Amino acid sequence: MPIRSRIRTVPHWPKQGIMFRDITTLLKDPVGLKLTLDDFKKRYKDMDIDVVVGIDSRGFILGGALAYLLEKGFVPVRKKGKLPAETVAETYDLEYGTDTIEIHKDAIEKGQNVLIIDDLIATGGTMLAACKLVEKLGGKVVECAAIVDLPDIGGRKKLEAKGFKVYAQCDFEGD
Amino acid sequence: MPIRSRIRTVPHWPKQGIMFRDITTLLKDPVGLKLTLDDFKKRYKDMDIDVVVGIDSRGFILGGALAYLLEKGFVPVRKKGKLPAETVAETYDLEYGTDTIEIHKDAIEKGQNVLIIDDLIATGGTMLAACKLVEKLGGKVVECAAIVDLPDIGGRKKLEAKGFKVYAQCDFEGD
Repeated sequence: MPIRSRIRTVPHWPKQGIMFRDITTLLKDPVGLKLTLDDFKKRYKDMDIDVVVGIDSRGFILGGALAYLLEKGFVPVRKKGKLPAETVAETYDLEYGTDTIEIHKDAIEKGQNVLIIDDLIATGGTMLAACKLVEKLGGKVVECAAIVDLPDIGGRKKLEAKGFKVYAQCDFEGD
Repeated sequence: MPIRSRIRTVPHWPKQGIMFRDITTLLKDPVGLKLTLDDFKKRYKDMDIDVVVGIDSRGFILGGALAYLLEKGFVPVRKKGKLPAETVAETYDLEYGTDTIEIHKDAIEKGQNVLIIDDLIATGGTMLAACKLVEKLGGKVVECAAIVDLPDIGGRKKLEAKGFKVYAQCDFEGD
């Protein structure tokens, strides 16, 4: 698992009991960065994709590169208040409270096929909200991509239950 | 100016009197994204660079892609409290108050040549703090790169006065 083995686990971060899967060790290694992006490129190069959406902010590291490699445009989904032009917003539940993400209204055209990318799928809350934003603008979500899936937390199942396809390069289960 | 002309100006954002230079219109256009990244690649492919550092969070969009294109590793500089492992921090002045950015302590090795990238240089405060972080870890800043320079605000001059080289693909002056 040349991708998985390059991901660092930081125990008890950001709080006690969480095993944080840190992709910075993968990305700082030229071989790791290349493995990850080449794998995404291979998977998506022959799919019908018009736009790559990256989720704020680790999804930006992957999304800009992947859009370039697929010769498509890149669109950011950002935390509330960060995008300067007219936006649509989606609010979703966190463990405590809620969070809101936004996309520029003119970022996606009706009927466009959209790939959404982030570093990691945990609860799937942010990814699901991003899917809803794309659909609000009339886009079609081709797939949700991530480096890491955490199946114990169930985000992937939640997304699939809503009809969204999910691809993850590796998972961390039961540890 | 095929890059500059694709950048949208949003007047009075985030506050009255600011002409915000919005690169999202450049990046969502496949030709714009390619022009920007190919230009950076052309400039840096024959320079002696070991690591590309991207600044949170628009610098991530460019930095991940450029690191891949140069076959180097990518390292994020992030707002305080976002990186999970041991960090070094740098605090800098804003118009009102201060801000702090961090880098992982093990992200750069002593003697490595580092390219730092962000979308835009305004006051240069964040970029200068990023340079200091790289130097704290023993790295050498080869150049500070951005899509946009705002010469009226003077960040580029400030960085150059401290001995750092700056490259920007375009500027917005006097408007």
